Amino acid sequence: MTIVVKTMRQERGSATRDVILATAERLFAERGIHAVSNRQISEAAGQGNSAAVGYHFGTKADLVRAIARKHTDQMEQLRVTMVADAAGSTDVRDWVACLVRPFTGHLADLGSPTWYARFCVQVTSDPALHEIMIEQALTSASLQMLVVGLHQCLPGLPPSVRDERSVMARHLIAQICVERERALAEGALTLYPSWDDLAASLIDAIVGLWQATMTHRP
Amino acid sequence: MTIVVKTMRQERGSATRDVILATAERLFAERGIHAVSNRQISEAAGQGNSAAVGYHFGTKADLVRAIARKHTDQMEQLRVTMVADAAGSTDVRDWVACLVRPFTGHLADLGSPTWYARFCVQVTSDPALHEIMIEQALTSASLQMLVVGLHQCLPGLPPSVRDERSVMARHLIAQICVERERALAEGALTLYPSWDDLAASLIDAIVGLWQATMTHRP
Repeated sequence: MTIVVKTMRQERGSATRDVILATAERLFAERGIHAVSNRQISEAAGQGNSAAVGYHFGTKADLVRAIARKHTDQMEQLRVTMVADAAGSTDVRDWVACLVRPFTGHLADLGSPTWYARFCVQVTSDPALHEIMIEQALTSASLQMLVVGLHQCLPGLPPSVRDERSVMARHLIAQICVERERALAEGALTLYPSWDDLAASLIDAIVGLWQATMTHRP
Repeated sequence: MTIVVKTMRQERGSATRDVILATAERLFAERGIHAVSNRQISEAAGQGNSAAVGYHFGTKADLVRAIARKHTDQMEQLRVTMVADAAGSTDVRDWVACLVRPFTGHLADLGSPTWYARFCVQVTSDPALHEIMIEQALTSASLQMLVVGLHQCLPGLPPSVRDERSVMARHLIAQICVERERALAEGALTLYPSWDDLAASLIDAIVGLWQATMTHRP
Protein backbone atom coordinates (compact mmCIF):
# COMPACT_ATOMS: atom_id res chain seq x y z
CA MET A 1 0.00 0.00 0.00
CA THR A 2 2.77 2.39 0.96
CA ILE A 3 4.48 1.62 -2.34
CA VAL A 4 1.33 2.38 -4.36
CA VAL A 5 0.86 5.71 -2.57
CA LYS A 6 4.48 6.56 -3.17
CA THR A 7 4.17 5.75 -6.86
CA MET A 8 1.08 7.90 -7.22
CA ARG A 9 2.89 10.73 -5.48
CA GLN A 10 5.86 10.32 -7.77
CA GLU A 11 3.59 10.34 -10.80
CA ARG A 12 1.88 13.48 -9.58
CA GLY A 13 5.30 15.02 -9.00
CA SER A 14 6.40 14.11 -12.49
CA ALA A 15 3.18 15.50 -14.04
CA THR A 16 3.69 18.73 -12.10
CA ARG A 17 7.25 18.97 -13.36
CA ASP A 18 6.06 18.48 -16.96
CA VAL A 19 3.42 21.21 -16.61
CA ILE A 20 5.96 23.60 -15.10
CA LEU A 21 8.49 22.87 -17.87
CA ALA A 22 5.94 23.47 -20.64
CA THR A 23 4.60 26.64 -19.01
CA ALA A 24 8.06 28.07 -18.39
CA GLU A 25 9.14 27.39 -21.96
CA ARG A 26 6.08 29.17 -23.34
CA LEU A 27 6.43 32.19 -21.04
CA PHE A 28 10.18 32.45 -21.69
CA ALA A 29 9.63 32.36 -25.46
CA GLU A 30 6.82 34.89 -25.43
CA ARG A 31 8.06 37.37 -22.81
CA GLY A 32 11.79 36.75 -22.42
CA ILE A 33 13.63 34.61 -19.87
CA HIS A 34 14.61 37.56 -17.68
CA ALA A 35 11.16 39.13 -17.73
CA VAL A 36 9.48 36.08 -16.18
CA SER A 37 9.81 35.22 -12.48
CA ASN A 38 9.61 31.74 -10.93
CA ARG A 39 6.49 32.95 -9.08
CA GLN A 40 4.78 33.89 -12.38
CA ILE A 41 5.61 30.47 -13.82
CA SER A 42 4.22 28.70 -10.73
CA GLU A 43 1.01 30.71 -11.01
CA ALA A 44 0.61 30.24 -14.78
CA ALA A 45 1.22 26.51 -14.28
CA GLY A 46 -1.72 26.43 -11.86
CA GLN A 47 0.39 25.69 -8.81
CA GLY A 48 -1.21 26.86 -5.58
CA ASN A 49 2.23 27.22 -4.05
CA SER A 50 4.08 30.10 -5.70
CA ALA A 51 7.39 28.45 -4.75
CA ALA A 52 6.62 25.32 -6.81
CA VAL A 53 9.24 26.09 -9.48
CA GLY A 54 11.96 26.51 -6.90
CA TYR A 55 10.88 23.32 -5.12
CA HIS A 56 10.89 21.20 -8.28
CA PHE A 57 13.79 22.74 -10.20
CA GLY A 58 15.93 25.01 -8.04
CA THR A 59 17.23 28.19 -9.68
CA LYS A 60 16.10 29.69 -12.97
CA ALA A 61 19.30 28.38 -14.60
CA ASP A 62 18.38 24.86 -13.41
CA LEU A 63 14.93 25.28 -14.93
CA VAL A 64 16.41 26.49 -18.23
CA ARG A 65 18.75 23.50 -18.19
CA ALA A 66 15.84 21.08 -17.63
CA ILE A 67 13.89 22.57 -20.57
CA ALA A 68 16.95 22.39 -22.83
CA ARG A 69 17.72 18.83 -21.72
CA LYS A 70 14.20 17.60 -22.54
CA HIS A 71 14.51 18.85 -26.13
CA THR A 72 18.13 17.91 -26.71
CA ASP A 73 17.41 14.34 -25.61
CA GLN A 74 14.68 14.10 -28.25
CA MET A 75 16.85 15.72 -30.95
CA GLU A 76 19.72 13.41 -30.07
CA GLN A 77 17.60 10.41 -31.04
CA LEU A 78 16.94 11.92 -34.47
CA ARG A 79 20.58 12.86 -34.94
CA VAL A 80 22.01 9.49 -33.93
CA THR A 81 20.11 7.80 -36.76
CA MET A 82 21.07 10.43 -39.33
CA VAL A 83 24.74 10.44 -38.35
CA ALA A 84 24.85 6.63 -38.59
CA ASP A 85 23.44 6.89 -42.13
CA ALA A 86 25.97 9.59 -43.08
CA ALA A 87 28.96 7.67 -41.69
CA GLY A 88 31.84 7.67 -44.18
CA SER A 89 30.26 10.28 -46.45
CA THR A 90 32.55 12.90 -47.93
CA ASP A 91 29.64 15.05 -49.11
CA VAL A 92 29.28 18.25 -47.06
CA ARG A 93 25.54 18.16 -47.73
CA ASP A 94 25.05 14.92 -45.76
CA TRP A 95 26.65 16.41 -42.67
CA VAL A 96 24.87 19.74 -42.98
CA ALA A 97 21.60 17.79 -43.14
CA CYS A 98 22.56 16.11 -39.83
CA LEU A 99 22.95 19.59 -38.36
CA VAL A 100 19.70 21.05 -39.69
CA ARG A 101 17.14 18.24 -39.78
CA PRO A 102 17.17 17.08 -36.14
CA PHE A 103 16.19 20.63 -35.13
CA THR A 104 13.56 21.25 -37.83
CA GLY A 105 12.28 17.66 -37.52
CA HIS A 106 11.91 18.09 -33.77
CA LEU A 107 9.99 21.36 -34.25
CA ALA A 108 7.72 19.60 -36.76
CA ASP A 109 7.17 16.71 -34.31
CA LEU A 110 6.14 19.11 -31.55
CA GLY A 111 3.19 20.40 -33.60
CA SER A 112 2.22 24.06 -33.88
CA PRO A 113 2.72 26.35 -32.06
CA THR A 114 6.20 25.69 -30.73
CA TRP A 115 8.30 27.83 -28.42
CA TYR A 116 11.60 25.98 -28.42
CA ALA A 117 13.37 27.93 -31.21
CA ARG A 118 12.66 31.24 -29.45
CA PHE A 119 13.75 29.74 -26.15
CA CYS A 120 17.00 28.52 -27.73
CA VAL A 121 18.14 31.82 -29.22
CA GLN A 122 17.59 33.55 -25.90
CA VAL A 123 19.63 31.00 -23.99
CA THR A 124 22.38 31.03 -26.60
CA SER A 125 22.70 34.81 -26.62
CA ASP A 126 22.59 35.23 -22.85
CA PRO A 127 26.03 35.59 -21.28
CA ALA A 128 24.95 33.84 -18.07
CA LEU A 129 22.89 31.02 -19.61
CA HIS A 130 24.99 30.44 -22.73
CA GLU A 131 27.07 27.74 -20.95
CA ILE A 132 23.97 25.55 -20.66
CA MET A 133 23.77 25.15 -24.44
CA ILE A 134 27.49 24.39 -24.69
CA GLU A 135 27.07 21.77 -21.95
CA GLN A 136 24.25 20.11 -23.93
CA ALA A 137 26.29 20.14 -27.13
CA LEU A 138 29.35 18.65 -25.43
CA THR A 139 27.37 15.70 -24.08
CA SER A 140 26.01 14.84 -27.55
CA ALA A 141 28.07 12.03 -29.06
CA SER A 142 26.30 12.37 -32.42
CA LEU A 143 27.14 16.08 -32.60
CA GLN A 144 30.82 15.33 -32.05
CA MET A 145 30.74 12.74 -34.86
CA LEU A 146 28.97 15.21 -37.12
CA VAL A 147 31.67 17.83 -36.56
CA VAL A 148 34.41 15.32 -37.38
CA GLY A 149 32.54 14.18 -40.51
CA LEU A 150 31.99 17.74 -41.68
CA HIS A 151 35.60 18.77 -41.13
CA GLN A 152 36.81 15.75 -43.10
CA CYS A 153 34.87 17.07 -46.10
CA LEU A 154 36.58 20.47 -45.81
CA PRO A 155 40.28 19.69 -45.34
CA GLY A 156 41.50 22.98 -46.82
CA LEU A 157 39.68 25.24 -44.39
CA PRO A 158 41.84 26.76 -41.61
CA PRO A 159 40.49 26.03 -38.10
CA SER A 160 39.67 29.70 -37.48
CA VAL A 161 37.49 29.86 -40.61
CA ARG A 162 35.84 26.59 -39.60
CA ASP A 163 34.99 28.16 -36.25
CA GLU A 164 33.60 31.28 -37.92
CA ARG A 165 31.44 29.36 -40.38
CA SER A 166 30.26 26.97 -37.71
CA VAL A 167 28.98 29.93 -35.67
CA MET A 168 27.36 31.41 -38.79
CA ALA A 169 25.61 28.12 -39.62
CA ARG A 170 24.28 27.86 -36.07
CA HIS A 171 22.91 31.43 -36.14
CA LEU A 172 21.32 30.82 -39.51
CA ILE A 173 19.50 27.67 -38.39
CA ALA A 174 18.32 29.27 -35.16
CA GLN A 175 17.15 32.56 -36.68
CA ILE A 176 15.34 31.08 -39.67
CA CYS A 177 13.56 28.61 -37.38
CA VAL A 178 12.66 31.39 -34.94
CA GLU A 179 11.22 33.42 -37.77
CA ARG A 180 8.93 30.58 -38.89
CA GLU A 181 8.02 29.62 -35.32
CA ARG A 182 7.03 33.19 -34.52
CA ALA A 183 5.05 33.58 -37.75
CA LEU A 184 3.15 30.34 -37.03
CA ALA A 185 2.43 31.45 -33.45
CA GLU A 186 1.13 34.82 -34.65
CA GLY A 187 -0.78 33.47 -37.63
CA ALA A 188 1.44 35.55 -39.94
CA LEU A 189 2.74 34.62 -43.38
CA THR A 190 5.77 32.32 -43.51
CA LEU A 191 8.35 32.05 -46.27
CA TYR A 192 8.25 28.24 -46.10
CA PRO A 193 5.21 25.96 -46.52
CA SER A 194 6.63 23.42 -44.03
CA TRP A 195 9.55 22.71 -41.70
CA ASP A 196 10.75 20.29 -44.31
CA ASP A 197 10.90 23.01 -47.00
CA LEU A 198 12.66 25.29 -44.57
CA ALA A 199 15.21 22.54 -43.87
CA ALA A 200 15.86 21.95 -47.59
CA SER A 201 16.47 25.68 -48.22
CA LEU A 202 18.68 26.02 -45.16
CA ILE A 203 20.76 22.99 -46.13
CA ASP A 204 21.38 24.43 -49.63
CA ALA A 205 22.40 27.79 -48.17
CA ILE A 206 24.65 26.36 -45.46
CA VAL A 207 26.41 24.04 -47.91
CA GLY A 208 27.13 27.18 -50.00
CA LEU A 209 28.38 28.98 -46.92
CA TRP A 210 30.74 26.13 -45.92
CA GLN A 211 32.09 25.80 -49.46
CA ALA A 212 32.44 29.55 -50.05
CA THR A 213 35.69 30.77 -51.55
CA MET A 214 37.98 32.17 -48.88
CA THR A 215 39.39 35.47 -50.13
CA HIS A 216 40.43 36.52 -46.68
CA ARG A 217 43.13 34.81 -44.69
CA PRO A 218 42.57 35.26 -41.00
CA MET B 1 17.81 89.29 -28.30
CA THR B 2 14.68 87.16 -28.53
CA ILE B 3 16.26 85.31 -31.43
CA VAL B 4 19.46 84.56 -29.47
CA VAL B 5 17.47 83.20 -26.52
CA LYS B 6 15.41 81.06 -28.82
CA THR B 7 18.53 79.64 -30.48
CA MET B 8 20.11 78.77 -27.15
CA ARG B 9 16.90 77.06 -26.11
CA GLN B 10 16.83 75.13 -29.34
CA GLU B 11 20.43 74.08 -28.87
CA ARG B 12 19.71 72.93 -25.35
CA GLY B 13 16.69 71.03 -26.68
CA SER B 14 18.81 69.38 -29.33
CA ALA B 15 21.51 68.41 -26.80
CA THR B 16 18.82 66.94 -24.54
CA ARG B 17 17.44 64.94 -27.43
CA ASP B 18 20.91 63.58 -28.23
CA VAL B 19 21.50 62.52 -24.62
CA ILE B 20 18.10 60.81 -24.48
CA LEU B 21 18.73 58.99 -27.77
CA ALA B 22 22.13 57.71 -26.65
CA THR B 23 20.85 56.68 -23.21
CA ALA B 24 17.80 54.90 -24.63
CA GLU B 25 19.89 53.02 -27.17
CA ARG B 26 22.27 51.79 -24.47
CA LEU B 27 19.49 50.74 -22.07
CA PHE B 28 17.53 49.03 -24.86
CA ALA B 29 20.60 47.07 -25.97
CA GLU B 30 21.58 46.04 -22.46
CA ARG B 31 18.18 45.30 -20.90
CA GLY B 32 15.73 44.87 -23.77
CA ILE B 33 13.41 47.41 -25.37
CA HIS B 34 10.34 46.19 -23.50
CA ALA B 35 12.05 46.00 -20.14
CA VAL B 36 12.92 49.72 -20.13
CA SER B 37 10.33 52.43 -19.45
CA ASN B 38 10.38 56.01 -20.73
CA ARG B 39 10.63 57.10 -17.10
CA GLN B 40 13.79 55.01 -16.58
CA ILE B 41 15.33 56.51 -19.72
CA SER B 42 14.52 60.05 -18.57
CA GLU B 43 16.13 59.35 -15.20
CA ALA B 44 19.22 57.63 -16.63
CA ALA B 45 19.61 60.56 -19.07
CA GLY B 46 19.75 62.91 -16.07
CA GLN B 47 16.45 64.61 -16.87
CA GLY B 48 14.80 66.10 -13.80
CA ASN B 49 11.43 65.67 -15.45
CA SER B 50 10.58 61.99 -15.73
CA ALA B 51 8.31 62.76 -18.70
CA ALA B 52 11.22 64.15 -20.77
CA VAL B 53 11.27 61.23 -23.20
CA GLY B 54 7.57 61.59 -23.94
CA TYR B 55 7.93 65.35 -24.33
CA HIS B 56 10.84 65.12 -26.80
CA PHE B 57 9.92 61.95 -28.71
CA GLY B 58 6.35 60.84 -28.09
CA THR B 59 5.77 57.10 -27.78
CA LYS B 60 8.38 54.40 -27.36
CA ALA B 61 7.94 53.47 -31.04
CA ASP B 62 8.72 57.10 -31.98
CA LEU B 63 11.85 56.95 -29.85
CA VAL B 64 12.92 53.67 -31.46
CA ARG B 65 12.32 55.23 -34.87
CA ALA B 66 14.48 58.26 -33.99
CA ILE B 67 17.36 56.03 -32.86
CA ALA B 68 17.12 53.92 -36.01
CA ARG B 69 16.91 57.03 -38.20
CA LYS B 70 20.07 58.54 -36.73
CA HIS B 71 22.08 55.42 -37.60
CA THR B 72 20.51 54.68 -40.96
CA ASP B 73 21.24 58.25 -42.09
CA GLN B 74 24.91 57.72 -41.29
CA MET B 75 25.00 54.28 -42.93
CA GLU B 76 23.25 55.65 -45.99
CA GLN B 77 26.19 58.00 -46.59
CA LEU B 78 28.62 55.07 -46.56
CA ARG B 79 26.37 52.97 -48.81
CA VAL B 80 25.77 55.68 -51.40
CA THR B 81 29.51 55.88 -52.10
CA MET B 82 29.95 52.12 -52.25
CA VAL B 83 26.94 51.57 -54.50
CA ALA B 84 28.18 54.27 -56.89
CA ASP B 85 31.53 52.46 -57.09
CA ALA B 86 29.81 49.09 -57.69
CA ALA B 87 27.51 50.44 -60.41
CA GLY B 88 27.49 48.11 -63.44
CA SER B 89 29.34 45.32 -61.67
CA THR B 90 28.17 41.77 -62.33
CA ASP B 91 30.22 40.36 -59.45
CA VAL B 92 28.00 39.24 -56.55
CA ARG B 93 30.86 40.05 -54.18
CA ASP B 94 30.73 43.78 -54.97
CA TRP B 95 27.04 43.97 -54.04
CA VAL B 96 27.38 41.82 -50.96
CA ALA B 97 30.14 44.18 -49.81
CA CYS B 98 27.67 47.08 -50.21
CA LEU B 99 25.32 45.20 -47.88
CA VAL B 100 27.88 44.30 -45.21
CA ARG B 101 30.39 47.14 -45.06
CA PRO B 102 28.12 50.12 -44.36
CA PHE B 103 26.94 48.32 -41.20
CA THR B 104 30.35 47.08 -40.00
CA GLY B 105 32.00 50.35 -41.05
CA HIS B 106 29.42 52.32 -39.11
CA LEU B 107 29.99 50.16 -36.00
CA ALA B 108 33.74 50.72 -36.37
CA ASP B 109 33.20 54.49 -36.72
CA LEU B 110 31.14 54.60 -33.52
CA GLY B 111 34.08 53.32 -31.44
CA SER B 112 33.80 50.68 -28.71
CA PRO B 113 31.48 49.85 -27.04
CA THR B 114 28.54 50.09 -29.42
CA TRP B 115 24.91 49.19 -28.79
CA TYR B 116 23.40 49.57 -32.22
CA ALA B 117 23.71 45.95 -33.43
CA ARG B 118 21.90 44.68 -30.32
CA PHE B 119 19.30 47.41 -30.71
CA CYS B 120 18.75 46.43 -34.36
CA VAL B 121 18.11 42.72 -33.82
CA GLN B 122 15.56 43.51 -31.15
CA VAL B 123 13.66 45.93 -33.36
CA THR B 124 13.80 43.55 -36.32
CA SER B 125 12.47 40.61 -34.34
CA ASP B 126 9.72 42.52 -32.56
CA PRO B 127 6.31 42.11 -34.22
CA ALA B 128 5.21 45.63 -33.24
CA LEU B 129 8.47 47.48 -34.01
CA HIS B 130 9.57 45.48 -37.04
CA GLU B 131 7.81 47.90 -39.42
CA ILE B 132 10.19 50.67 -38.37
CA MET B 133 13.14 48.83 -39.90
CA ILE B 134 11.21 48.14 -43.11
CA GLU B 135 10.30 51.84 -43.29
CA GLN B 136 13.98 52.79 -42.99
CA ALA B 137 15.00 50.28 -45.67
CA LEU B 138 12.31 51.48 -48.06
CA THR B 139 13.47 55.09 -47.84
CA SER B 140 17.06 54.14 -48.71
CA ALA B 141 17.70 54.75 -52.41
CA SER B 142 21.12 53.08 -52.22
CA LEU B 143 19.61 49.92 -50.74
CA GLN B 144 17.13 49.69 -53.61
CA MET B 145 19.97 50.05 -56.13
CA LEU B 146 21.97 47.41 -54.29
CA VAL B 147 19.08 44.93 -54.48
CA VAL B 148 18.70 45.53 -58.22
CA GLY B 149 22.46 45.14 -58.76
CA LEU B 150 22.59 41.93 -56.73
CA HIS B 151 19.62 40.37 -58.51
CA GLN B 152 21.19 41.15 -61.89
CA CYS B 153 24.16 38.98 -60.88
CA LEU B 154 21.84 36.08 -60.03
CA PRO B 155 19.43 35.83 -62.94
CA GLY B 156 18.72 32.11 -62.46
CA LEU B 157 17.44 32.36 -58.91
CA PRO B 158 13.63 32.18 -58.51
CA PRO B 159 12.18 35.17 -56.62
CA SER B 160 11.15 33.00 -53.65
CA VAL B 161 14.72 31.73 -53.20
CA ARG B 162 16.01 35.29 -53.55
CA ASP B 163 13.67 36.30 -50.73
CA GLU B 164 14.80 33.40 -48.55
CA ARG B 165 18.50 34.08 -49.07
CA SER B 166 18.04 37.77 -48.58
CA VAL B 167 16.48 37.12 -45.16
CA MET B 168 19.31 34.68 -44.35
CA ALA B 169 21.99 37.21 -45.32
CA ARG B 170 20.35 39.87 -43.16
CA HIS B 171 20.19 37.56 -40.12
CA LEU B 172 23.79 36.53 -40.63
CA ILE B 173 25.08 40.11 -40.73
CA ALA B 174 23.01 41.14 -37.72
CA GLN B 175 23.85 38.12 -35.54
CA ILE B 176 27.58 38.04 -36.25
CA CYS B 177 27.80 41.78 -35.54
CA VAL B 178 25.78 41.37 -32.34
CA GLU B 179 28.11 38.63 -31.20
CA ARG B 180 31.20 40.81 -31.66
CA GLU B 181 29.49 43.89 -30.20
CA ARG B 182 28.47 41.95 -27.09
CA ALA B 183 31.91 40.38 -26.69
CA LEU B 184 33.56 43.82 -26.92
CA ALA B 185 31.12 45.28 -24.40
CA GLU B 186 31.78 42.42 -21.96
CA GLY B 187 35.52 42.30 -22.52
CA ALA B 188 35.16 38.71 -23.79
CA LEU B 189 37.10 37.02 -26.57
CA THR B 190 35.98 37.77 -30.14
CA LEU B 191 36.41 35.59 -33.21
CA TYR B 192 37.50 38.60 -35.29
CA PRO B 193 40.40 40.99 -34.59
CA SER B 194 38.49 43.93 -36.13
CA TRP B 195 35.19 44.96 -37.74
CA ASP B 196 37.06 44.90 -41.02
CA ASP B 197 38.06 41.23 -40.57
CA LEU B 198 34.53 40.39 -39.58
CA ALA B 199 33.24 42.09 -42.74
CA ALA B 200 35.68 40.18 -44.96
CA SER B 201 34.63 36.81 -43.48
CA LEU B 202 30.94 37.68 -43.70
CA ILE B 203 31.25 38.76 -47.33
CA ASP B 204 32.94 35.46 -48.27
CA ALA B 205 30.24 33.46 -46.50
CA ILE B 206 27.31 35.44 -47.90
CA VAL B 207 28.66 35.23 -51.45
CA GLY B 208 28.76 31.45 -50.94
CA LEU B 209 25.23 31.49 -49.60
CA TRP B 210 23.90 33.49 -52.58
CA GLN B 211 25.67 31.29 -55.09
CA ALA B 212 24.74 28.01 -53.38
CA THR B 213 23.42 25.22 -55.59
CA MET B 214 19.63 25.05 -55.40
CA THR B 215 18.66 21.39 -54.95
CA HIS B 216 15.21 22.29 -53.77
CA ARG B 217 12.60 23.92 -55.96
CA PRO B 218 10.15 25.90 -53.90
